Amino acid sequence: MNEVKVIEIKKSVFAENEKDADALRVELKNKGVCLLNLMSAPGSGKTTTLIQLINRIKDKIRVSVMEADIDSDVDAVKIKEATGVPSIQLHTGGMCHLDAEMTRQGLDNLDLENTDLVILENVGNLVCPAEFDTGATCNAMILSVPEGDDKPLKYPLMFTVCDLVIINKTDVMPYFDFDLERCRKNILMRNPHATIISVSAKTGDGMDALAEWIRGKVNVSELRC
Amino acid sequence: MNEVKVIEIKKSVFAENEKDADALRVELKNKGVCLLNLMSAPGSGKTTTLIQLINRIKDKIRVSVMEADIDSDVDAVKIKEATGVPSIQLHTGGMCHLDAEMTRQGLDNLDLENTDLVILENVGNLVCPAEFDTGATCNAMILSVPEGDDKPLKYPLMFTVCDLVIINKTDVMPYFDFDLERCRKNILMRNPHATIISVSAKTGDGMDALAEWIRGKVNVSELRC
Repeated sequence: MNEVKVIEIKKSVFAENEKDADALRVELKNKGVCLLNLMSAPGSGKTTTLIQLINRIKDKIRVSVMEADIDSDVDAVKIKEATGVPSIQLHTGGMCHLDAEMTRQGLDNLDLENTDLVILENVGNLVCPAEFDTGATCNAMILSVPEGDDKPLKYPLMFTVCDLVIINKTDVMPYFDFDLERCRKNILMRNPHATIISVSAKTGDGMDALAEWIRGKVNVSELRC
Repeated sequence: MNEVKVIEIKKSVFAENEKDADALRVELKNKGVCLLNLMSAPGSGKTTTLIQLINRIKDKIRVSVMEADIDSDVDAVKIKEATGVPSIQLHTGGMCHLDAEMTRQGLDNLDLENTDLVILENVGNLVCPAEFDTGATCNAMILSVPEGDDKPLKYPLMFTVCDLVIINKTDVMPYFDFDLERCRKNILMRNPHATIISVSAKTGDGMDALAEWIRGKVNVSELRC
């Protein structure tokens, strides 16, 4: 098994976060680095989706991954083994989200000079990560079919702050009471500007469209989102 | 559609929580009321499981339900319509968990004199609710098959604090890479004393065993857990 770097990150003072996030965003823009903050509930398929995505874009975009988890480092190892791109693990020490300072501590451990896109896999949680600006240039989230089409009603802020909503596990749609149109309506009620892309990270269905969207965001000629 | 009571609850001071929780537990014991705190990730099937469970036990146990949600009241309405037992909605105002004081605010709106078992459906979140003692006599959580058998590795505290782990959505096991034995092993690594019951709330499979376990906890002759 590949070894991956594990960084123990510390919580910053809450009140400072918005200022820190804005400053980090400016710095990243100046460095030509796009930071994608990927959020979801536990078990929605973030890591599998990332592997499929990265293998579709890594020939043209230099990608690095920061995996945030409370304790384990299984995701960072999986990403590294399956894609070969630089991948580090951030341990939050029990914290339920990442803030801008914690994100910066992770970024300090990456070679940003040789990176176009950093993907931050946030802690699996539909509540807290939505409340803390990480300094990301884009916010995205995954909603998986088994979770149900009513989640935008129950976790409003998460759907409001995301530019992109990925609906994952469409391959099991026949086995669940999930109405794609009702889901789209619920998402757009929270955020009329959200882009919605349906995929099955397991079968690969829809993954090309997702890769295309990400490529469009990371304009390699200008090296920014 | 049935109307349900909606209570806007406020956050108490964090440091006081453990003291509050212990005091609440003693009060509930003196009143002969068992409080079951049910936790899970979003979309694991808490509400559907509760409906199936309550309809199996309500003839012998007087049940009331408190549904915690950030915003909506769809769950409390569903429970009331499908079971007929008293059901109230707690709005957390964006909070990611319930603490003992918030739980008490909910209990104050129930008729505890005529209740044997209060089931608290906590906010869908595998991180924060595990950190805050609600004053419950029993902690339980639902892990659904689509979330994956590795969740005890990633959310250690949740599995450590739960007396009962319900594995739900076993009907879709053939469509997911979920190993029941590996899952049991991961759960017992976190908590060797955990009871594990597999169910499909959709088909009803395993629900009688779950109802039996709950009945055993709520000893009606002594009216306590």
